[in-house]
Amino acid sequence: MSIVVQKYGGSSVATAEHIKAVAGKIRRSREAGLDLVVVASAMGKTTDRLLRLAGEVSRDPSPREIDQLLATGEEQSVALLAMALHDRGVPAVSLTGPQAGMRTTGRYGSGVISEIRPDRIRKLLGEGKVVIVAGFQGMNALGDVMTLGRGGSDTTAVALAAALKAERCEIYTDVDGVYTADPRLVPEARRIPLISYAEMAEMAWRGAKVMHPRAVELGALYGVEIHVLSSFDEESPGTIITGGEKVEHLETRETVAGIVHDTDVARITLNGIRTGPGTLSKVFTPLAEKGISVDVIVESGIEEGVADIAFTVSRADFAEARSAAGEVARALGGSVEGEEGLAKVSVVGTGMLNRPGYAARMFAALGAEGIPIRMVSTSEIQVTCVIPAERVQEAVRRLHRDFELEEREDV
Amino acid sequence: MSIVVQKYGGSSVATAEHIKAVAGKIRRSREAGLDLVVVASAMGKTTDRLLRLAGEVSRDPSPREIDQLLATGEEQSVALLAMALHDRGVPAVSLTGPQAGMRTTGRYGSGVISEIRPDRIRKLLGEGKVVIVAGFQGMNALGDVMTLGRGGSDTTAVALAAALKAERCEIYTDVDGVYTADPRLVPEARRIPLISYAEMAEMAWRGAKVMHPRAVELGALYGVEIHVLSSFDEESPGTIITGGEKVEHLETRETVAGIVHDTDVARITLNGIRTGPGTLSKVFTPLAEKGISVDVIVESGIEEGVADIAFTVSRADFAEARSAAGEVARALGGSVEGEEGLAKVSVVGTGMLNRPGYAARMFAALGAEGIPIRMVSTSEIQVTCVIPAERVQEAVRRLHRDFELEEREDV
Repeated sequence: MSIVVQKYGGSSVATAEHIKAVAGKIRRSREAGLDLVVVASAMGKTTDRLLRLAGEVSRDPSPREIDQLLATGEEQSVALLAMALHDRGVPAVSLTGPQAGMRTTGRYGSGVISEIRPDRIRKLLGEGKVVIVAGFQGMNALGDVMTLGRGGSDTTAVALAAALKAERCEIYTDVDGVYTADPRLVPEARRIPLISYAEMAEMAWRGAKVMHPRAVELGALYGVEIHVLSSFDEESPGTIITGGEKVEHLETRETVAGIVHDTDVARITLNGIRTGPGTLSKVFTPLAEKGISVDVIVESGIEEGVADIAFTVSRADFAEARSAAGEVARALGGSVEGEEGLAKVSVVGTGMLNRPGYAARMFAALGAEGIPIRMVSTSEIQVTCVIPAERVQEAVRRLHRDFELEEREDV
Repeated sequence: MSIVVQKYGGSSVATAEHIKAVAGKIRRSREAGLDLVVVASAMGKTTDRLLRLAGEVSRDPSPREIDQLLATGEEQSVALLAMALHDRGVPAVSLTGPQAGMRTTGRYGSGVISEIRPDRIRKLLGEGKVVIVAGFQGMNALGDVMTLGRGGSDTTAVALAAALKAERCEIYTDVDGVYTADPRLVPEARRIPLISYAEMAEMAWRGAKVMHPRAVELGALYGVEIHVLSSFDEESPGTIITGGEKVEHLETRETVAGIVHDTDVARITLNGIRTGPGTLSKVFTPLAEKGISVDVIVESGIEEGVADIAFTVSRADFAEARSAAGEVARALGGSVEGEEGLAKVSVVGTGMLNRPGYAARMFAALGAEGIPIRMVSTSEIQVTCVIPAERVQEAVRRLHRDFELEEREDV
C-alpha cells in the first residue's frame, strides 16, 4: 500500500465538531486504500491562549519552558483525533513528536528537524493503524521537547512524507488551493492547479499564507509532492506543488504564476552614511542579533564614500529596528528615517528568468494606476515593489489583469 | 543540603495569580536553604475540561489516548510554574513525568510507579535548580505516557521523596492539616499535629479528602515523613504524618485520632442465597471484573446453607453493581435489594486495638441520637457504621463529643 501524509491545521481541528469532521475525512481516505499518517496542529487558538498565560506569569518566559508549554497544544489535538477515529471504527494511535521519532536541533522555539526515526510509525502502519503525529515539535539531544517555530506543522508533515517515502503530502487548509492572487482582493483570481516548488516557495515568502515556504523548500529538497487541499470542500482538486518533468513546461509558458502581496511592511532608511568595507555588516549585524528579519534591501550611492541604505522589516519590528539603525547611522555620520504603512506586491513565475521585460511591465502597470514605487527588488523568479499599503488592492488587481492571469487556461 | 519535595494540588495552581503565589512560596522555601523538588497537578478544572472534550469526540475513548490527553494538563502547570520562578529570579526547570524518570506499569488511567530514575533530577539539583515535576504521570515500557489514577500527584510526590531520600514531603492543600473531624460539620474539630501512617491511611480510606491513602501507604513503606500544609496560611504548622518512635506514644493515648465520614455510599444486599465453597467469589468476581470497588462487606447466616450478603459501593457504581449482583442472586436462588442515600462514619485510632470498648461506645453514641445503624465493619484501627446520609452531621458531632476530641491537647 502507498503511504500518504495528511496535515490538518489549527482551524481544521478548532472544536470537537471540527475534529469529528476531520475524523470522517480520514476514514474516507483510508477506505480508499491508503496507509495514512496524519499531522495535526493545536486546536484553534490554543497556542495563543497558552502564550497569554505564559505572559501572565512571567515577563520574559524562558524559551525551553515555552516549548514545554506549547507542545501540549498539539498533543491534545492528536489524542482527541485518535479518539474520534476509534469512535468511527478506525484503528488509530496518537504520537507526540518525540514518540514519533522526530529529532530536532537548534534553538528552542525555532527547532530544526535533524533526523526522523520512523520505526514506530512504520510498525503501527504495518498493524493497520492510522498514525496521528503532533506537528510542530520534536525531541532534542537533551530529551526535551522543542517546537519548530513558524510553519512547523507543515514542515513536520513534509519531513515525515520524505522519511516515509510517502506518495504525497496533503496539506488541508481553509482555502482550496493556491490562487493567482488573493481572491478577497481579486474576484477573478484563479486556482493554480500545478506549481513548481521554486514558484511556490517564492510566493510563500512574498506573502501567500497558504503554506510555509520552509515546508515547500523541504519538499523540493526531497522531491515530496505536496497537494494543497480544502478541509471543507472535498470536490476541489486543489493545487499540486511538484518539480521535475511535471513542471518543466511551466518555464516556457507565456505568463507568470501569480501575484502575491504582504501588507505587513515598514521601511527604514539610513541617509548619507559613510561607506567602506564592512558597512553593510555594521548595519545589519545588530539587527540580526536582535532576531529582526530584514527583507528588501536597496543601497544607493549619492557621491563617493557616502550612500543611502534602505530596507524593510515587519511592523512589529519597526521601532526596535529603527532605534538600532539610528545608532549605526549616527556612528557613520548619517541620519535615519522610517515609514510605516507600506506593502509589498510581487510578480512570481519561473518563466521570468529569461524575460527581463516582466519588470518593465510591472512598473508600467503600477505607473498607469498612479501608484508610487518606494523600493524595488528582483531575482530570477520574482519582481517585488514596495508601495503604500492603501494602494495594494488596486495594484494587485491591475497586475493580475495586465499579466493576463484571468484568462490563463488550467494546465 | 537537604532535599524537600513539595506538592501543590490543582486548586493551588488554578490561575496565573495562583501560580505566581506558589512561585513566591517556593522562593521563600529556597531562601531557607532547601534543595527543592516540586510536584504540581493540572490547573484547576483542566482535567475535567479535557475529559469533556474527549466525551464530545468519542463515546468510549481509549484509555491510552485519554492518558496522552490528560498528561498535558500537568505538563502545562509545571512549565508555567517554572516560568513564574524564573520571573522571581529562581533558577528552575520543568520536567514531564517521563523526563523526570518516572517509570510506570499497569493499566492506562491507573498506572503504578514501577521505578524512578532520578539521575536528571539529581543533576539539576546539583546545578542549584528547583526541579518542577508533572505529577500524576510516568512512562511505561512502550515509551508512552501513563497517568496514575486517583491520588496520582500525591503519590508522585511521596515516591520522589523516597527515591531522593528527601528529608520530608510537603503536601500543600486548601486546608491547613488533618482534623479530628470535618470542620464544616464540627466547628470544634481540631487540627491533628501528629498522626501515624496507619491512622492517616485509614482516615483517608474512610473519607478524609486531604490526602490519598495510596500516597500515605507509600510513605509508610519508605518511611517518608509527610507534612500536610496550607497553600494559603503559611503560619499553620499543619499535620505531620510519620511512624516509628515519633508516634509510639499515640498508641497509649486515651482517645481516638479522629472521626471521618463519607456520604458517597450505597448498599446492595443479596437475600437468601445458597452458600457453599466459593460463594463470595461468585458474588464479587463479576464486580471486580467491571472495576467496581466494594467496601464494607457483611455476611449473615440465616439458616444452614442460606445467607444474606450485603456490601457497599459508591453511588456512581450502584446501578451496575445492583444489576450484576442481581444475576448472581437469582442464580443462587435468592433476590437482590439496594439502598442509596447512605453514609459511613468511622472512628479511627491506633489505640483502638487494645480497647474493644470503643465499638460499644460508638454504638451507644449513635443510639443516643436515635441514628439507625445499617451495617458495621471493624478492624484493628477503626470502627465503621453505615447510617442514613441525612444523619451524618449529627453522628459526627456526637461521636466527636463522646470521644472527647474537642478537649484533646495538642501533642
